[in-house]
Amino acid sequence: MAQRIFNFSAGPAVLPVPVLEEARDNLLSLGSTGIGILEHSHRGKAFIKILEETEARFRELASIPANYKILFLGGGASTQFYQIPMNLLGKADTADYLITGSWAEKASKDAKRFGKVHIAASSQDRNFSYIPDTVTYSDAPAYVHYTSNNTLFGTQFQSDPTPAANVPLICDTSSDMFSRPIDVSKHALIYSGAQKNLGPAGVTVVIIRDDMIAKGAVDIPAMLQYRTHAENDSCYNTPPCFSIYVVGLVLKWIQSQGGLAAMATHNEAKAGKLYDALDKSKLFKPTAAKTSRSRMNVTFVTGNEDLDSKFVTFAKERGMDGLKGHRSVGGMRASIYNAFPPEGVDALVAAMAEFEAANPVA
Amino acid sequence: MAQRIFNFSAGPAVLPVPVLEEARDNLLSLGSTGIGILEHSHRGKAFIKILEETEARFRELASIPANYKILFLGGGASTQFYQIPMNLLGKADTADYLITGSWAEKASKDAKRFGKVHIAASSQDRNFSYIPDTVTYSDAPAYVHYTSNNTLFGTQFQSDPTPAANVPLICDTSSDMFSRPIDVSKHALIYSGAQKNLGPAGVTVVIIRDDMIAKGAVDIPAMLQYRTHAENDSCYNTPPCFSIYVVGLVLKWIQSQGGLAAMATHNEAKAGKLYDALDKSKLFKPTAAKTSRSRMNVTFVTGNEDLDSKFVTFAKERGMDGLKGHRSVGGMRASIYNAFPPEGVDALVAAMAEFEAANPVA
Repeated sequence: MAQRIFNFSAGPAVLPVPVLEEARDNLLSLGSTGIGILEHSHRGKAFIKILEETEARFRELASIPANYKILFLGGGASTQFYQIPMNLLGKADTADYLITGSWAEKASKDAKRFGKVHIAASSQDRNFSYIPDTVTYSDAPAYVHYTSNNTLFGTQFQSDPTPAANVPLICDTSSDMFSRPIDVSKHALIYSGAQKNLGPAGVTVVIIRDDMIAKGAVDIPAMLQYRTHAENDSCYNTPPCFSIYVVGLVLKWIQSQGGLAAMATHNEAKAGKLYDALDKSKLFKPTAAKTSRSRMNVTFVTGNEDLDSKFVTFAKERGMDGLKGHRSVGGMRASIYNAFPPEGVDALVAAMAEFEAANPVA
Repeated sequence: MAQRIFNFSAGPAVLPVPVLEEARDNLLSLGSTGIGILEHSHRGKAFIKILEETEARFRELASIPANYKILFLGGGASTQFYQIPMNLLGKADTADYLITGSWAEKASKDAKRFGKVHIAASSQDRNFSYIPDTVTYSDAPAYVHYTSNNTLFGTQFQSDPTPAANVPLICDTSSDMFSRPIDVSKHALIYSGAQKNLGPAGVTVVIIRDDMIAKGAVDIPAMLQYRTHAENDSCYNTPPCFSIYVVGLVLKWIQSQGGLAAMATHNEAKAGKLYDALDKSKLFKPTAAKTSRSRMNVTFVTGNEDLDSKFVTFAKERGMDGLKGHRSVGGMRASIYNAFPPEGVDALVAAMAEFEAANPVA
């Protein structure tokens, strides 16, 4: 097998090696079943056990109250952009959206097809480089929607928004789910595409409070009603079985590392080291406002596109991949999710110093 | 590794061993990239190459004309039940549905939310045990929809329906895709959940003619418009990367076996052997009408529920799993998709003979 390199990809992203090894070892036969993990029926005992264990691990890791269901859906987090308003936003209702990047924007755009949207906050004025301090809620929103971490622009909410009590709070946690403790009880619905912190692409986890399921629209296709999936334990149709299986392995790994508080410590240490290096550098500049910095996606530039591109190549030659920034920001982006090893951050910091020495700022 | 057993599951189902081995060997590093197949960015060179190769193999295997796009979507074939009418059925339009089982029924139910549905044929009168001979189309349907193979009831269209020229023909081929040659040019849209003949659960392949993309609704969320996925080569959002990768490996395997004509020969031989045994048996009775028999799912009963259940256990003790019939039919179901080995059919036929000898019909 080729030696593994440091994968700074924004998603799909690096997974823990023990997870990959366990998945590998079960491809031709899940345990002693004589049937590989890809080949087990979703109605069979072996898969149902996996599903139940994965759900239990979710519940335990985030102390998810009993009045929340955990759903494993296909279609990606982008499917939730329309499934949420389709279920929860009546034509005459208003939903509040906090626009902190292009994912939040896309979500709000879909909501406008079903009801009214009030922009409660936006950081578009400075290219989404910060999380707005002030949020102006509408009078009685059907819900408030925010994106906890902005993968593209490297910003992250440092604390949850605080709409009025009884206003349902909805969060897209696709890019920082389980990277730190999360207070599920403050939220009515949390959704997360798996392919950053939770597992491979192909499954979206939806944690939804019972009253949201009950109040969801009934005049929409069965597949789009949350109740359909809740009532059928995510097996109304064939779920993305393998992705769910790998998510279960990742949760087991998070538990073995000490849970969400340990993840937060681990992620703060990695991000802290990288931001320190950036703050000290004369060449590399972080692009996110200091108080809004993401611990998942660290974005930075040299201010010179040619030099950015040279650095990406320079790092690649040293075994670091996926550092090219998103086209909307440019420069570099180091995605350092839960499974990203601290040694990779050390290697990046060393490469930055070496590159800066070779390209001193005049 | 545990010895592999004969897996008669209706889906997710058995996959070719060389496919599983190749996937296994690339979990920690895809080739020499140093990044596992689950961890590669969908925007990176390695995955884009996989996507392009998979599309090319599709096109080659079924001689798919240039005016068709091949889309790899999440959400399962059940998502297509509403995505199709949402795009192609106006409120005043009528779509014709051929109801040959519960999947076709579910599809027609979703269509009714968007326009009018005309039942052009139905075999509900005899518990979907046959494919209707006569089809009565409506005057100018927006499209005609049929399900080529009925997984639950073990029936299969022996030839395609023939609506008037210019009427778009839409087929759900989830359970017999690429099990025999398919004439794409006769169809406007073909869709198939992967988890029977094409790969693991988690991806649905949609083969759609350009004019269908163009005439699709524009006032629906971007994710639900086929043009969004066509214009973005299935990467508008993160696609189910691993499932697509495995589908590519399965297509390579089908090519190595001689393509779709060879698959048909191979499947006819397996199904023929099993139906022969059933026709000769005094104990076991096939449930599908002789002229409508599926070569993918062979359904049969003893006529005695206790005996059915005893036989399922008897077979299980001999290394055969997944033979319990669907609750809507009862009895047994042997799903023998492309990757199901002929030795498994031999083993089943032998077990049936042995069981019949021990339980002679009075």
